[in-house]
Amino acid sequence: MPFFIYRELREHSPGGGGRNYSTMKIGVVGCGAVGSYYGAQLGRTDAEVWFLLRSDYDVVRERGVWIHSPRGDWHARPQCAAHPEEIGVCDLVLVALKTTANHVLPELLPPLIGPHTTVLTLQNGLGNEAALARVIPARQILGGLCFVCLNRVAPGVIQHTDHGQIVLGEYERPPEARTFALAERFQRAGVPCEVTPDLARAHWEKLVWNIPFNGLGVAGIAGFDAVIRGEYPPQSGTPTGRCLPTDTLLADPRWAGLVRELMEEVIAAASALGLPVAASHADKLLALTRTMGAYRASTLQDFEKGLPLELDSLFREPLRQGQAAGVAMPRLQAMCRVLEKLTS
Amino acid sequence: MPFFIYRELREHSPGGGGRNYSTMKIGVVGCGAVGSYYGAQLGRTDAEVWFLLRSDYDVVRERGVWIHSPRGDWHARPQCAAHPEEIGVCDLVLVALKTTANHVLPELLPPLIGPHTTVLTLQNGLGNEAALARVIPARQILGGLCFVCLNRVAPGVIQHTDHGQIVLGEYERPPEARTFALAERFQRAGVPCEVTPDLARAHWEKLVWNIPFNGLGVAGIAGFDAVIRGEYPPQSGTPTGRCLPTDTLLADPRWAGLVRELMEEVIAAASALGLPVAASHADKLLALTRTMGAYRASTLQDFEKGLPLELDSLFREPLRQGQAAGVAMPRLQAMCRVLEKLTS
Repeated sequence: MPFFIYRELREHSPGGGGRNYSTMKIGVVGCGAVGSYYGAQLGRTDAEVWFLLRSDYDVVRERGVWIHSPRGDWHARPQCAAHPEEIGVCDLVLVALKTTANHVLPELLPPLIGPHTTVLTLQNGLGNEAALARVIPARQILGGLCFVCLNRVAPGVIQHTDHGQIVLGEYERPPEARTFALAERFQRAGVPCEVTPDLARAHWEKLVWNIPFNGLGVAGIAGFDAVIRGEYPPQSGTPTGRCLPTDTLLADPRWAGLVRELMEEVIAAASALGLPVAASHADKLLALTRTMGAYRASTLQDFEKGLPLELDSLFREPLRQGQAAGVAMPRLQAMCRVLEKLTS
Repeated sequence: MPFFIYRELREHSPGGGGRNYSTMKIGVVGCGAVGSYYGAQLGRTDAEVWFLLRSDYDVVRERGVWIHSPRGDWHARPQCAAHPEEIGVCDLVLVALKTTANHVLPELLPPLIGPHTTVLTLQNGLGNEAALARVIPARQILGGLCFVCLNRVAPGVIQHTDHGQIVLGEYERPPEARTFALAERFQRAGVPCEVTPDLARAHWEKLVWNIPFNGLGVAGIAGFDAVIRGEYPPQSGTPTGRCLPTDTLLADPRWAGLVRELMEEVIAAASALGLPVAASHADKLLALTRTMGAYRASTLQDFEKGLPLELDSLFREPLRQGQAAGVAMPRLQAMCRVLEKLTS
């Protein structure tokens, strides 16, 4: 039997053929760019997708969500709720709040959670699964790393610029059947998705790049000497007065050296936490990043738009975990001080 | 962090990054075309692949396996064993024996099986998982439907003509983490692979097409009247004297009607077994098959080469299961008699 015949038969079988995955009820908490984009994508599978909305409630309820993308514009019509009680218990909850809003989780999540609900945080950096674990059982938690360029350009309007991959893992556990099934659902929704056997390691691997390029990209405003000394306003040296994209950082040997030192601190912290990353990766990442031209890491974009920076999850929590594992991380500590003062 | 940076870092992390799947020990039992092809493909992942060989042992041990394919020729060097004891316990065993050789399973399998071994049968038709379940615990058994055009053209030489998809399912259970992990491994090996939630249903869906086109393609030699009456040599009517490819069957309204009646019998049997297939699928499959031109189903090719036909798994076992569920299947019964007499 040729495969196309099987596929045809299967896809129109009563009760579904080769894939099961009955209609899944999905709640999206945090309907900014990330939540709206991935929630709308999942709505392309056999899913009932609910958006929990505040300021955008009226617009999205009336007009749905538009995704503008170089791959084509498209439209989604999620169910809309202003309160989690209107949604009720879900099979899957996507958490895509800014991590600066994690304190509202104990208020928003409980109505959505039953004993079989899976909660997937798509938030940046470290500590978000742990924040969920203070509200729901750890075994219900997954984390996803997003590699995507998105902007919420207006209520209900998301600009997708590039990419979209998700790397999915279980919180403090190896992958399970549901991990692979969810990855498969994302794939069916058009979202390239991989499963990582070790979510903590995946987070740290991402941080090796994100901490220097997201951090120095903004802290660089203060000038090199200030970033080294952890002071702002600078007592000496020259503030650059502007965010520094990757090519600017790498064109200056002093900044490039600091990028490498930060990478080495993060690698040392990861290794101390039992997540070994080869020291040679710093060189490799520097070389790869040189191929990218003037890349503006997401923190730069947030800062320039006046949005709050996710300092805790991207910088302070890695610093805390590294220091708790006995790695001093002085460069990261100084950079954190500058970022705090720049944004306070 | 751009995804290509993450991927680069991950793939070269000590201990492996985003995918785990440590080196898997894979034993292949039945190293004809199917076993050699998929075994060699899996050898492209981090796997230690053992071929259990009889007649081809010397050739494959010396020269490995060549896969000739329109996608490019390539070469694999599996470990070779003449006895299963040389291989020992595997993580995964592929069973790709002709189903006519299933009686050797109790002799060949036990040395390869530990409590955590997964056994995947890639054999044709019904009853192969059940045959395994007489030797090993049911929970260790998976079945895979292959959609591939392969020929073993010489010892250690496999001609791949087209396709290659596998549809994977657990025996009498829904998919598990390992099901998805194995599908993912096949994908990484370059084999398109899907997971079915219901292996029994997938088998029957395939049979709706395979029983008429594989069966009548060969039985048609006896002529229409003989196939209707289940007799050979024919007492009346004109034997065609040759195998009938799909287009020949569909060009003759009598044969096309019989194709449809066989499909309807198989659909009725599947439905009686709790695996509903819409009756309208017969029409759809007929229409789709008309688009294919002169397709020679695999049973025709085997018959013309003088190879034994898999009558039990392709025809007799579906007949037995259908009748046990209260569906008479007279057309299939008559066709089986002709096939038996043609090949005895």
